[in-house]
Amino acid sequence: MAAKQQTRRKFLQAGAIGAAASLAVSPGCGAQVRSISVPPAGKPHGPLAGIRFKLGLASYTLRKFNLDQTLEMTKRVGLKYICFKSFHLPLDSTPQQISEVVKKVKDAGLILYGGGVISMKKEPDVHHAFEYAKAAGMKIIVAGSLTPDLLGLVDKKVKQYDIKVAIHNHGPGDKLYPTPDRAYDKVKPYDKRIGFCHDIGHTQRLGVDPAVSTEKVADRLHDVHIKDVTGPTAKDRGCEIGRGVIDIPKFLRTLVKIKYAGVVSFEYEKDADDPLAGLAESVGYVKGVLAAIS
Amino acid sequence: MAAKQQTRRKFLQAGAIGAAASLAVSPGCGAQVRSISVPPAGKPHGPLAGIRFKLGLASYTLRKFNLDQTLEMTKRVGLKYICFKSFHLPLDSTPQQISEVVKKVKDAGLILYGGGVISMKKEPDVHHAFEYAKAAGMKIIVAGSLTPDLLGLVDKKVKQYDIKVAIHNHGPGDKLYPTPDRAYDKVKPYDKRIGFCHDIGHTQRLGVDPAVSTEKVADRLHDVHIKDVTGPTAKDRGCEIGRGVIDIPKFLRTLVKIKYAGVVSFEYEKDADDPLAGLAESVGYVKGVLAAIS
Repeated sequence: MAAKQQTRRKFLQAGAIGAAASLAVSPGCGAQVRSISVPPAGKPHGPLAGIRFKLGLASYTLRKFNLDQTLEMTKRVGLKYICFKSFHLPLDSTPQQISEVVKKVKDAGLILYGGGVISMKKEPDVHHAFEYAKAAGMKIIVAGSLTPDLLGLVDKKVKQYDIKVAIHNHGPGDKLYPTPDRAYDKVKPYDKRIGFCHDIGHTQRLGVDPAVSTEKVADRLHDVHIKDVTGPTAKDRGCEIGRGVIDIPKFLRTLVKIKYAGVVSFEYEKDADDPLAGLAESVGYVKGVLAAIS
Repeated sequence: MAAKQQTRRKFLQAGAIGAAASLAVSPGCGAQVRSISVPPAGKPHGPLAGIRFKLGLASYTLRKFNLDQTLEMTKRVGLKYICFKSFHLPLDSTPQQISEVVKKVKDAGLILYGGGVISMKKEPDVHHAFEYAKAAGMKIIVAGSLTPDLLGLVDKKVKQYDIKVAIHNHGPGDKLYPTPDRAYDKVKPYDKRIGFCHDIGHTQRLGVDPAVSTEKVADRLHDVHIKDVTGPTAKDRGCEIGRGVIDIPKFLRTLVKIKYAGVVSFEYEKDADDPLAGLAESVGYVKGVLAAIS
């Protein structure tokens, strides 16, 4: 194995894929904890070697499991970053409860980077979401059902809290935010910290190529829900990544091309009662593609 | 998505990756069963598009599980080909028992392509292995501990039965067959149907690059145990593919280069009591690499 490849491979294996990963650790094989080898600056790499994003979990995947189980399964599949759906950190938690959950995440060696999808239909929802995210140390709020006339308020809030808002697109049936590119004009007038969490499954179910939609909103892409779907129509459903119709290598190459530096979170919606195998297969698939294109 | 990519992707998704796959079906997403789109003859493909091999399971992975569980888990991870270790088809089975197991495999939509690792230390072991394989309709016997002075007998048997013998290399501590390339001279005088089942983990644990060893025995490569290992030494152990040190993209590119047309079987040795997640992650990783390089 060439030294260059070796270095790159170790970098990928670490799960935390990003320039900021030099201090991170990975579950690796078994109980082993390894430090990450970041490619030395100035070394030549292939055209796609500049992967800056990280892999994580959208905890909606584990909605039928409690917090401890969720953290354990996240570690088991080798993911480091996590975005909590309210199942794992209720929106009405007290500051004390939030702090206890945050400690558990940290003790598990994971990073709680965001919360959502959080519904924002009225002003109090916006106020509350930012207080909740701040208390939990989240860097990002994934927002759902965000009424456009609240965007002015959201704009003030992102400036005040320096927390990003990533609007989650919901594909067929979502008149406001069906795909990121079709909603781009809505966020364009506002602070750049307001953008999208691109759910590529919902985009594909509208017959739109997620790679194309991603590139069009490159400067507003703040989070990703990666998944696969059985087909390109509203009636299609989620499945293991690689078994559906989304061109995952193309999508990942696009993320590299636009220098995306956020988190790519797995949201595996199938097998809600027993999701581990399908989630693991999906994580493996994405890591395999990244190893091959880097 | 370009039509060419679409076709290739469907081909890969099917799990049965090979020119002979046109009649095969795949579990696909959920209970869906899909036919496979084979790339039309004469269409241009990328330099690595000519993947002729298939993905399967070495049932040693599921040694703690009974036959029904093993077939179910094999289907769940989307594999179609299976090689039975004796746990799932005991070597002392009666013809009636063999026929019942073979029917179960067929009813599950899977293909029993081989048996092993089967120990061949004495003449009766060789006679018995071929009778067992013939009764089960196996195309290949994966042989372990094969005493070199039995190779003359094995040579007669492969001619008589037209069943291949793939000698399993065992890495550090295996004086006869540590890696395929180091044992090539032993099989060279004999029928080409005598060759190797390349266990790439054992090769890597000797510090030998599995891709290099594979290329050297290209004309005698009859089976593959694909896996990853924590390091390049005798004390290292198996782990999820992608989390260890083996350069899997390089290895798979080599299989494509040598036009390998057999089965690449997953042998996931870690987590014997709960292997599904690690197996699924490994399968996903390999499918991801193949999607990216084809």
